[in-house]
Amino acid sequence: MLAATKEQTGLAIVTEVITPNDVELVSRYADCLQIGTRNCQNYKLLEACGDQGKPVLLKRGMSMTLDEYLQAVEYILAKGNSNVILCDRGIRTFEDHTRNTLSLSVVPEMHCRSHLPVVIDPSHGTGHARLVPDMARAAVAAECDGLIIEMHPNPAHALTDGAQSIGPGVLAELMQSLDRVAAAVDRRCQPLMGALD
Amino acid sequence: MLAATKEQTGLAIVTEVITPNDVELVSRYADCLQIGTRNCQNYKLLEACGDQGKPVLLKRGMSMTLDEYLQAVEYILAKGNSNVILCDRGIRTFEDHTRNTLSLSVVPEMHCRSHLPVVIDPSHGTGHARLVPDMARAAVAAECDGLIIEMHPNPAHALTDGAQSIGPGVLAELMQSLDRVAAAVDRRCQPLMGALD
Amino acid sequence: MLAATKEQTGLAIVTEVITPNDVELVSRYADCLQIGTRNCQNYKLLEACGDQGKPVLLKRGMSMTLDEYLQAVEYILAKGNSNVILCDRGIRTFEDHTRNTLSLSVVPEMHCRSHLPVVIDPSHGTGHARLVPDMARAAVAAECDGLIIEMHPNPAHALTDGAQSIGPGVLAELMQSLDRVAAAVDRRCQPLMGALD
Amino acid sequence: MLAATKEQTGLAIVTEVITPNDVELVSRYADCLQIGTRNCQNYKLLEACGDQGKPVLLKRGMSMTLDEYLQAVEYILAKGNSNVILCDRGIRTFEDHTRNTLSLSVVPEMHCRSHLPVVIDPSHGTGHARLVPDMARAAVAAECDGLIIEMHPNPAHALTDGAQSIGPGVLAELMQSLDRVAAAVDRRCQPLMGALD
Repeated sequence: MLAATKEQTGLAIVTEVITPNDVELVSRYADCLQIGTRNCQNYKLLEACGDQGKPVLLKRGMSMTLDEYLQAVEYILAKGNSNVILCDRGIRTFEDHTRNTLSLSVVPEMHCRSHLPVVIDPSHGTGHARLVPDMARAAVAAECDGLIIEMHPNPAHALTDGAQSIGPGVLAELMQSLDRVAAAVDRRCQPLMGALD
Repeated sequence: MLAATKEQTGLAIVTEVITPNDVELVSRYADCLQIGTRNCQNYKLLEACGDQGKPVLLKRGMSMTLDEYLQAVEYILAKGNSNVILCDRGIRTFEDHTRNTLSLSVVPEMHCRSHLPVVIDPSHGTGHARLVPDMARAAVAAECDGLIIEMHPNPAHALTDGAQSIGPGVLAELMQSLDRVAAAVDRRCQPLMGALD
Repeated sequence: MLAATKEQTGLAIVTEVITPNDVELVSRYADCLQIGTRNCQNYKLLEACGDQGKPVLLKRGMSMTLDEYLQAVEYILAKGNSNVILCDRGIRTFEDHTRNTLSLSVVPEMHCRSHLPVVIDPSHGTGHARLVPDMARAAVAAECDGLIIEMHPNPAHALTDGAQSIGPGVLAELMQSLDRVAAAVDRRCQPLMGALD
Repeated sequence: MLAATKEQTGLAIVTEVITPNDVELVSRYADCLQIGTRNCQNYKLLEACGDQGKPVLLKRGMSMTLDEYLQAVEYILAKGNSNVILCDRGIRTFEDHTRNTLSLSVVPEMHCRSHLPVVIDPSHGTGHARLVPDMARAAVAAECDGLIIEMHPNPAHALTDGAQSIGPGVLAELMQSLDRVAAAVDRRCQPLMGALD
């Protein structure tokens, strides 16, 4: 189905893998493998993703320090795959107005400690669609290398994560404003539409 | 001394008050009273600041939810002083690469819940001078109404908080870039130099 | 009223002070002054309590490390009052099945670092009456020097903190079982009934 | 090697499994499978352990709420294996005097919500050998159903976790005192020596 979707739409496909046995098959069809936050220290899975050649998007575990996160990355790098994309989606704290607590200081900090691209996920990072645009603009101002934003044609009817998904109209406006913020910090936005399986 | 400094420099003076008895005297000379993070639920101090007319900068307590923070604000408002400035400087979490964990989602969230201006303090929010400029730009992109940034002519020799203070050269560059980010979100920067006592 | 209550009942009186101006008056009538968790870094209040002779029960701030807590204690000791009672009532974390998160490891740790008595408050530490007896027994097994337990003749009708208050029958049973646990760690329980104002 | 150790010593063997492929082999030799804290939401591993018949010791993830923890347990139960042992080893918080923050209120709370046995790990829960005995006694007083305590013949030379391991002499004394505390809450201790691989 992934292969068909890709052919019909031309979208890049990012698919989550959850166990080492899936990696080989998924890597044949997806453009990028995602390892979810709950598997960020699933070492056999990290190694299996290091053993294949597709890029790996590794979401930071919700209670990992940055040291622990970068150590987890090493399990992939050590197997010979250096196409790793870092992604923060917030940590777990007492704060309850957001689903997670997303400190953008991780962007300059990870740029200091690693050469890998740093992507921010303001959808999981806040859990509320109304907070996503401001946090997305802030992340671009902090010079992140990418954003993962959940969009749904009709968020109220999404099967999962509807509360944090923005609609197509909001996304279109957001992308225009992101261009302006990116320019203000001497960077450029390149929309890369993808389907998250 | 505050009065003399003010006269000589023309700087606006923001001074922290730590006990109700100080409020009357300080409010005679300072332009704005600050209540520190450790006193954010010191209710008698909040009331004393509500009983005078100078603006009050109330720093969010490091383990307060936003609900609790806005309830603390009510102690000032209830006494008749509506010139309150909200200020987030981060919360306490397990994260150890920063002094505190500063989620900029508080900016749109507090704008939703309150009409009061929202100021961000990236110096305490990160604790590291090298992270301050990116977080300051991000805060402006998230449409905060003000920034508190610690600057010291020679951070390495500051008596306190040197690690999180930027030098005058960095500040000058930062202010230029803040202008650009502000313009990208249709806002304007107005530098307001002040001495923090 | 405090004086009358004390005379009529013979109960020891512990009263919270919330601002330095109250300290002198309260210390005339109360047997012990309490400083609440939100005032644990209210330094002028700490000093005022250090300037008088009644014992001081200092509740740990909900986001203070033990180092910071013991530094706060020094503000009292430095003024010459060494009758300080340490009290932990839990810290603020992401955990949501309890009101606060109470780690009893603070008991042996504070006994290591300080000569002061260590009291545990399982009522605030859990926020739920049904968890209080087990946590009280555990605290005694960890060799705490005292417990603060909220009791109300009719918890369902308490003006505050009813959810964490146990009734008189539960308290009576609890005290018997605390005697047995205390004996098992070679200590002895001495009930000290007090009214918390 | 596990089989040989078991035959020679008569010790019960608890072995950690880290990927579904290991489960079948390990379950042939071990008496109990352990799922570590970093794999507590590794759903394929949970299901694989549910598909075999040996007991499963599931360590709570360090940033999971109790609701999330008990939902993870369901992945094992749903596959037909009801021999699950709950185990708390503390959560991650700002607290820095211990490796993790271990609130014993989870014992009565999990007894309320589940029929499964609740085991406490004061070694990981504190990270410091000197805090282990008091926390072990406290856990027994809170009526836990088991303890996991790390012991090493010579903790200073342990390959891992030496700082939190107690020596054989301390363990022998601790077990005597645990008997007394258990008796005080009308329970009985049964030492079950095991080798943790």
